[in-house]
Amino acid sequence: MDDILRPSPLSAADKKRLDDLYAMIEREAATFIGYPCSAIFDYRALYPFLSHPINNVGDPFVPSNFHLNTHVFEREVLEIFGELTHIPADAFWGYITNGGTEGNMYGIFLGRELFPDGVVYYSEDTHYSVSKILRCLHVRNIMIKSQPDGRIDLEDLRETIRIHRDLPPIIFANVGTTMRGAVDDLVGIRQILDDLAVHRSYIHADAALSGMILPFVDDPQPWDFRAGLDSISISGHKMIGSPMPCGVCLAKKVYVDRIARSIEYVGTLDTTILGSRSAITPLFLWYAFRTVGLEGFRRRIKYCFEVADYAVAELGRIGRNAWRHANSVTVVFDRPAPEVISKWQLAVQNAIAHVITMPHVTRERIDCLVADVARASSVALGAKGNA
Amino acid sequence: MDDILRPSPLSAADKKRLDDLYAMIEREAATFIGYPCSAIFDYRALYPFLSHPINNVGDPFVPSNFHLNTHVFEREVLEIFGELTHIPADAFWGYITNGGTEGNMYGIFLGRELFPDGVVYYSEDTHYSVSKILRCLHVRNIMIKSQPDGRIDLEDLRETIRIHRDLPPIIFANVGTTMRGAVDDLVGIRQILDDLAVHRSYIHADAALSGMILPFVDDPQPWDFRAGLDSISISGHKMIGSPMPCGVCLAKKVYVDRIARSIEYVGTLDTTILGSRSAITPLFLWYAFRTVGLEGFRRRIKYCFEVADYAVAELGRIGRNAWRHANSVTVVFDRPAPEVISKWQLAVQNAIAHVITMPHVTRERIDCLVADVARASSVALGAKGNA
Repeated sequence: MDDILRPSPLSAADKKRLDDLYAMIEREAATFIGYPCSAIFDYRALYPFLSHPINNVGDPFVPSNFHLNTHVFEREVLEIFGELTHIPADAFWGYITNGGTEGNMYGIFLGRELFPDGVVYYSEDTHYSVSKILRCLHVRNIMIKSQPDGRIDLEDLRETIRIHRDLPPIIFANVGTTMRGAVDDLVGIRQILDDLAVHRSYIHADAALSGMILPFVDDPQPWDFRAGLDSISISGHKMIGSPMPCGVCLAKKVYVDRIARSIEYVGTLDTTILGSRSAITPLFLWYAFRTVGLEGFRRRIKYCFEVADYAVAELGRIGRNAWRHANSVTVVFDRPAPEVISKWQLAVQNAIAHVITMPHVTRERIDCLVADVARASSVALGAKGNA
Repeated sequence: MDDILRPSPLSAADKKRLDDLYAMIEREAATFIGYPCSAIFDYRALYPFLSHPINNVGDPFVPSNFHLNTHVFEREVLEIFGELTHIPADAFWGYITNGGTEGNMYGIFLGRELFPDGVVYYSEDTHYSVSKILRCLHVRNIMIKSQPDGRIDLEDLRETIRIHRDLPPIIFANVGTTMRGAVDDLVGIRQILDDLAVHRSYIHADAALSGMILPFVDDPQPWDFRAGLDSISISGHKMIGSPMPCGVCLAKKVYVDRIARSIEYVGTLDTTILGSRSAITPLFLWYAFRTVGLEGFRRRIKYCFEVADYAVAELGRIGRNAWRHANSVTVVFDRPAPEVISKWQLAVQNAIAHVITMPHVTRERIDCLVADVARASSVALGAKGNA
């Protein structure tokens, strides 16, 4: 390197700032049990790739003049997800995204392109980012009531679609809601469409977390392409784990081809939403599948369920109304005191909170959480008693 | 870690695949001169952060319950870009994106939210991804002719806006086009809006590459918030350099506040397009500014210009009509033979190609390219002579 290009070393003050940041992250990682991101991953073997300007620009299935890419590994990851979601390799198209939102945006975009007069239906338990996507994409949409357990209310859905039978429904289904881990009843949804003789429809599933759980359980709720999905978004930084957000989006190839054809005038088969795309996250996901493996993920998820059951029992023991859905690692319980929420980085909504027993969450951490919850409630009770 | 969670080591065959990929990337890096991505960066000091599930979810200016974030460093990077683009710290909002496309999408989204009946005007030299964004966002748009040098044709723009004077114009300006590095004439554009008494308008600039060049030159074309911009997108993986795509998007805060207020019903100030966001790219950019520094970037860009001039001279010497715009590192020349395009990963469009003299591109590499171009043309001439 020419000397005039050479950077200076970091100053001691800046070095200290980074060290402090790292210490904070290590400290907070010890109480990281409220978000669905696994902390168990180790991609050090791949760090050498971070010394090059690698980039998976464009469609992973189309050769690129930008040679510093990992498209081959990206396609392998997509094939694995094709198998996990039960769609033949020649029937899907997909790519690795920057996270769940991008995959959900792609799915709704695809649905809207196929049915420009379509109406998106989604439950009130849907992640708040979906409202933003719907606004971005300028698509007509109606929020449907949820049942108390977090699943979409089928009666409300049926009556609402009935009123708009002239407009193709685009169903945004939750395969694991953010707060309660509820899986929308896809069989019931298909039944409604059949009952109302709706033949033009589209179903996208947001399977951010559960898309990497349900392939590994014995009795999954119907959730994948066999259940009638047209597209699905699954996060990579959640059950698999990654230091930066990522995910996969898969869709039926016949739809994507129809869109790709119609934008051919731009002179490229540029079917992804963003142009330049990370080339390192495909390597991370590939590496996880080759080292943890499908059997390893099955073991991890069994372990997560055991810890979830333990959390339900322990929180129940101190009277906090804890429960979880079948095949879910999201343990819902009564909202605790603010200091407990902050210390354990818990996501809360109205009267409930959840802990998510990802692979790094041990019984010991649950014990500490339960002790804190119990202590904070007794302090609150004590304060009330004194008032 | 519980033993049942432990991954297996990578198999020898998989290890070899990674080694082969790495060797390919090292080999191709030697001829990487056609894309605007610097290969000179070294973030090894930050790799320890990659062992945690860090995530800058949501708005960088709003405290989050997700504590494993680098929002503080993200805000510092944004402040630096605020200074470079000449907007006071209290007058802008912004965030670190996954690359130029996301920033452009945000800018057009903002313009459309402010002017739902607006029409987007953009030149035919605009990056192809913009057509996709416009389609995604469902916004009315008109492509304007370019001048031969790549800048937007002001006469065509004036006449087209005149026809649609009842609809607010949303100008998508190129501050450095992809193929020719042309900077649209923002003074001329403002003049047209003034001449036509258009008082409701919006200007977004795609300054993917030049947004990190023009702050460091003595005589920049008007390009930043002082030139009347409402928002701007600048890439981080281009002049700064990064192993994964990233960028910044800045917009006038008053506009963002108006949007944020109107989506408050979703219960969060979630103003970014994607929810989960990388926490490592803000650290990379921060680190680059603290080690290369603003003076270092000024030196780098001077160096890039010198190599660009050298490339113009050498390609000119062999009769390839080479030229570049003022303050541009994009050297345009006659499209060479296919084997040269592939070997040097050159971007081409019709009769032209370009080489982009990023900091890693040396005079020696230019010599090799020129020799290859000369050899391929003489072979072609020889073949023609024989035919």
